[in-house]
Amino acid sequence: MGRGGVTGRLFGVGVGPGDPDLITLKALKVLQGADMIAYPAPETGPSLARAIAAPHIPEGREEFAIRMPMLVNRFPATEVYDQAAERIATALDHGRSVAVLCEGDPFFYGSFMYLFGRLADRHPVEVIPGVSSLMACAAALSAPLSARNDVLIVLPAPLDDAVLEARLGLADAVAIVKIGRHFERIRTLLERTGLAEDARYVERATMDNQRVLALSAVDEKAVPYFSMILVHRRGRAWI
Amino acid sequence: MGRGGVTGRLFGVGVGPGDPDLITLKALKVLQGADMIAYPAPETGPSLARAIAAPHIPEGREEFAIRMPMLVNRFPATEVYDQAAERIATALDHGRSVAVLCEGDPFFYGSFMYLFGRLADRHPVEVIPGVSSLMACAAALSAPLSARNDVLIVLPAPLDDAVLEARLGLADAVAIVKIGRHFERIRTLLERTGLAEDARYVERATMDNQRVLALSAVDEKAVPYFSMILVHRRGRAWI
Repeated sequence: MGRGGVTGRLFGVGVGPGDPDLITLKALKVLQGADMIAYPAPETGPSLARAIAAPHIPEGREEFAIRMPMLVNRFPATEVYDQAAERIATALDHGRSVAVLCEGDPFFYGSFMYLFGRLADRHPVEVIPGVSSLMACAAALSAPLSARNDVLIVLPAPLDDAVLEARLGLADAVAIVKIGRHFERIRTLLERTGLAEDARYVERATMDNQRVLALSAVDEKAVPYFSMILVHRRGRAWI
Repeated sequence: MGRGGVTGRLFGVGVGPGDPDLITLKALKVLQGADMIAYPAPETGPSLARAIAAPHIPEGREEFAIRMPMLVNRFPATEVYDQAAERIATALDHGRSVAVLCEGDPFFYGSFMYLFGRLADRHPVEVIPGVSSLMACAAALSAPLSARNDVLIVLPAPLDDAVLEARLGLADAVAIVKIGRHFERIRTLLERTGLAEDARYVERATMDNQRVLALSAVDEKAVPYFSMILVHRRGRAWI
């Protein structure tokens, strides 16, 4: 416990999908007030979450890059999060506030939950919701994500084909996330289920290098993690 | 076509879920630059979208409240949107820019799509994605919406019980939206399917009068339109 027995506050800060202007005023205020700013980062090189928030990070603030070894299944290396949580807990115990930057929204498939799970029992935590990739991709496509009484489903691409196929048919709108190296399998699945024509691929939504492509135009060897496929059965029937 | 043959730009602006600080910098910039600011409003009384954005609306700007008669099924009165689209089209044809305020995100069950459907063919339209109620409710609950390879499904409460039940079992995380007068039926359905214990009710997330309740504590006669039920089967198993 820190100054006067006050533990610091931990913030999970959604910085939005990529365009630095898609950060919220609330996130900005937290960044300006935090004693330490932490963010996920690859083993070497820059952090995307930090790059998105870069224009808004005060100079000279203590920063903590949580460097994650590259993993095929992209689930966390337990020790990395254990150590990161320990360093953050020490700061909180000294009464310092810590803002953890999260691409998109912290609670929508965000790695923040691994810190949250380790720290929320002992420290006050506040999550600042952000604009998620789901809404950013719909805006990039210039097409409604869900309208009227549409059922919307979000499916992670690493799931088995059988699991995905059983769910594809039960929604009006489908968002397939975490595509990366699974692209070719997903494209084949959507072709087989007759959904490929209604699907659009969005890469790096709202970033400078955003691309929107028909599935047939995608090079399966160059699909980044930050990509999504949106399928809407109704086409323009909302009008 | 307006000044110099230039048609104005239409913006669908997500103003976020309720807390005025959950608006994005990009939305702020659009509001500051728009010639006209339009928003949905009830037949009488204030507009929620305008109330959320109120601190950010420049004084003296032309405003247009699109007043919608109260409808039981909450789908649009065609004539209201026809007339609103006509007034907005006239402004755009005169080279003026128009920002339409949308609670949450414009393309996530937003009424903006009815204007979009009437205007996007003839005028340039840009959608500014916003923080949606989905992410706001997860933040209010202080619990991840979706983690790892979770399947997330969004179900509008007005759908039939059989439609809902067939989908409840196929997702790890469920968000039930548009609850309002359907609350009691949904509570019964969740009890019958064994999901009531894992469900939380969130009302007016991020607003001053936000409430988070167990289903059993909700007064079914006082459920506002801006409420949501989140169910997560995994509990805290993401840790």
